[in-house]
Amino acid sequence: MTENRRDEFGLISYLTGRQKVPTALGERITVGNGDDAAIVAGRTGYEWIACCDTMVEDVHFKRQTMLPSDIGHKALASNISDVAAMGGIPLFYLVSLGLPHTWNEEEIAEIYDGMATLALRYNMALIGGDTVAVPGPLTLTVTVLGEVEQDHGLLRGNARPGDAVFLTGTVGDSGAGLDILLQEQWGVANVPVEWMSLANRHRLPEPDVKAGRLLATSGIRIALNDISDGLASEAWEIAEASNVRLVLEEAAIPLSAPVLRYADMSGNCALDWAFYGGEDYRLVGCVSAEYKESISQAFAEKELPLYWIGEVQAGSPEVRIHWQSGKSTTLPKKGYNHFNGER
Amino acid sequence: MTENRRDEFGLISYLTGRQKVPTALGERITVGNGDDAAIVAGRTGYEWIACCDTMVEDVHFKRQTMLPSDIGHKALASNISDVAAMGGIPLFYLVSLGLPHTWNEEEIAEIYDGMATLALRYNMALIGGDTVAVPGPLTLTVTVLGEVEQDHGLLRGNARPGDAVFLTGTVGDSGAGLDILLQEQWGVANVPVEWMSLANRHRLPEPDVKAGRLLATSGIRIALNDISDGLASEAWEIAEASNVRLVLEEAAIPLSAPVLRYADMSGNCALDWAFYGGEDYRLVGCVSAEYKESISQAFAEKELPLYWIGEVQAGSPEVRIHWQSGKSTTLPKKGYNHFNGER
Repeated sequence: MTENRRDEFGLISYLTGRQKVPTALGERITVGNGDDAAIVAGRTGYEWIACCDTMVEDVHFKRQTMLPSDIGHKALASNISDVAAMGGIPLFYLVSLGLPHTWNEEEIAEIYDGMATLALRYNMALIGGDTVAVPGPLTLTVTVLGEVEQDHGLLRGNARPGDAVFLTGTVGDSGAGLDILLQEQWGVANVPVEWMSLANRHRLPEPDVKAGRLLATSGIRIALNDISDGLASEAWEIAEASNVRLVLEEAAIPLSAPVLRYADMSGNCALDWAFYGGEDYRLVGCVSAEYKESISQAFAEKELPLYWIGEVQAGSPEVRIHWQSGKSTTLPKKGYNHFNGER
Repeated sequence: MTENRRDEFGLISYLTGRQKVPTALGERITVGNGDDAAIVAGRTGYEWIACCDTMVEDVHFKRQTMLPSDIGHKALASNISDVAAMGGIPLFYLVSLGLPHTWNEEEIAEIYDGMATLALRYNMALIGGDTVAVPGPLTLTVTVLGEVEQDHGLLRGNARPGDAVFLTGTVGDSGAGLDILLQEQWGVANVPVEWMSLANRHRLPEPDVKAGRLLATSGIRIALNDISDGLASEAWEIAEASNVRLVLEEAAIPLSAPVLRYADMSGNCALDWAFYGGEDYRLVGCVSAEYKESISQAFAEKELPLYWIGEVQAGSPEVRIHWQSGKSTTLPKKGYNHFNGER
């Protein structure tokens, strides 16, 4: 620890004190932060969702690409997105922070503030965690607990031949945003106004909890996955878990105007970011084609975006792409690696 | 990743496949490993317990002091101990592993095997996690979910004047064990048979879940804390959370025969390890003195150790020690720092 940092206990209570507990959640917290463990109450008719995810400096983010508050935001957002992909409601989170001495107390507080701001928007409460000084890169592990109605979880293995494939938003924005943030002349501090929206999609992604809830409460069998590693990799996960073939239409893949403009300007292919860029945190799913209209209508009523991008066929697990040229090819299963090119 | 390591997905499924799911728990797991998140069922009349803890190479362990399987064991054990300190039943765990390229696949598998072996003994199941390559020390974050009967959590703030203070086992063994493992001529591979039991108390601690359950189901108001940072630090936490003074009797602090022998041999003070050594994972607690006999009897019937070590008085938060010499002094609040002396 550097001299301008408190001891572990002081630091933890300083950091955890920065988070307000939403009123609605307070009565479900029997024991919050500050004891050996937290105790929280369940709800009749609901099951618990649990997930955890780690972000590491220079693997998942660099100082050049993310502000400290962005790091906190994204670490929590990626877990909320996993809960959204199960159709659930995020409730509680625990934070384990491995801190190198090169980060000062103000920056650490900003990491926690990034989480707290997002958490409050989703009515979530911080209930525990751990802070430890590490002789290495900053490492942030977030665990999220949520809940979903019994038997309503939306699993990757739910896709069937005859399903239609949907997406809850445009993809590729975060990948393009990372490319922008990695430009030496820009970085997080100097992104031109024109590309700010793309950079923000990388820095401050919003998980699709509302879309997940709409799908979970529909009572329809739906396969669902969140896009953390690119559309190709996540579609492959559904194909393999469901033992089906997904056929996507190139013409139907939703690309935002800024992504197309930035791809043009920088000589990149926007679809590469859509398929193999990561951290868009949109949901990709499959549902029987007979429900296309009713689901489209439900999304429209809530003013949530929805795009139909392909269909599910019987066959060995595969993701195929039907190009506008008329050709069809297998979409490579490769995923997303932040700073080292393809995985 | 080194070449003898699989890619992330291959590695995760290889590692998580090493853990058997206890039959009794299987039907409570709606979704286990392999989807975006796990879904598990609660039980009527119970609340959930959640905690997480991080272990970092060269901060919490060294290659010299711990085998890979020990690291897995202890990371899980420290969380189980937090559940025990709430009087709860540990059920599920999630693992986030930050892996430097200097660890090979066999060693990583041993870390998971260390967790799996301990988990099976406590009827726990692995339900999720994350593996990421890191340019730094090995970092292992374990989250444990457990349950406890509604309103039966044993909190640090439950102590009252007139309570008796108890310990569920000897303390100082782990601290002495670490001292042994740090001797250059020994290390984890060559500890003399005579000191093996102490080294094992450091490498493979057993959390006191049975004791915690016995106390939680007694229906009596009890303050409880697990000893991860030394008796002094944990007793101080109870004193501060309960706003009382704890007065401990030096003569009553239980020290094992090996600790006393090794302290003699090495010129150390056994009580220093008891007060300021860490990771004994015994429970320290306070309960109204009128229950001393009935609790002693209940522990004896289950063949669980129990020691009465002092009393709780009204007064500003403090931990005092009544020495055999007749003198009383404040016990310093300092805790445990693995390799850098006192905190």
